[in-house]
Amino acid sequence: MRSSNHVHAYEPPNAILESILYCEDLDSCGHFYENILGLTLFSHQPGRHRFYRLSRGMLLLFCAKATSSETIMISGNEIPKHGAEGAGHLAFSVPANQLKSTRDRLLSFGVAIESEVSWPGGGHSIYCRDPAGNSIEFVTPELWFGER
Amino acid sequence: MRSSNHVHAYEPPNAILESILYCEDLDSCGHFYENILGLTLFSHQPGRHRFYRLSRGMLLLFCAKATSSETIMISGNEIPKHGAEGAGHLAFSVPANQLKSTRDRLLSFGVAIESEVSWPGGGHSIYCRDPAGNSIEFVTPELWFGER
Repeated sequence: MRSSNHVHAYEPPNAILESILYCEDLDSCGHFYENILGLTLFSHQPGRHRFYRLSRGMLLLFCAKATSSETIMISGNEIPKHGAEGAGHLAFSVPANQLKSTRDRLLSFGVAIESEVSWPGGGHSIYCRDPAGNSIEFVTPELWFGER
Repeated sequence: MRSSNHVHAYEPPNAILESILYCEDLDSCGHFYENILGLTLFSHQPGRHRFYRLSRGMLLLFCAKATSSETIMISGNEIPKHGAEGAGHLAFSVPANQLKSTRDRLLSFGVAIESEVSWPGGGHSIYCRDPAGNSIEFVTPELWFGER
């Protein structure tokens, strides 16, 4: 890697490029994210991962048993191991005018709506579980980016 | 919540609004994300969470012991429980011209660089651990959004 001769002062990161969820059964989770939510599979490796590219970042679905134990080297450097167990959490940004169709979509596939929350400061959330038990939220962006 | 009379066909979510990491010690992790990485604390609740707002999404740092056991009701609806244990993973998007200053920043605070990977298809990653053991990556966006 070469860098320019310009000195760039440190700036805190301002965007997340990869958000991660773990599961044991990539096939059943893949069905949820691909067939029910409708995400397009970007790449996958059976038994290890299924990756999805959204407009500005990646959703990486990993089998924790694989990523916590495997040693993968890239040009002599190891990809650090990771992998968590238990119910993770992630929220998709959904425009307000998509809340109804999102709720209907989940229900039409037999996915239970675990809860819905109208936030006191603005914003509305729909919660369900993916097949791994992760808490998946569909929330309007004004929850965090609205006027406060 | 009111919705318009227009029927909006379902569209898959195309952005992630909340990415989550878990930890046991919010104070030590807060030090890492705030004082070392330089993120601005958006809101916090001692023993439960520290939240950070980035340009287009939130990084939510939760104490899993709290969020997996507490019952929080908002206007009669429960926020679903969640919480994972083990090494999670998250990648921040970092421009190529910030890689050196990011590496220097981590080292200047005594944070070990666990690995660096130059990806065969383009992109470069710097990996370290947060105090909870989560694998934190700083990666140039061309890894996923470059020409392929």
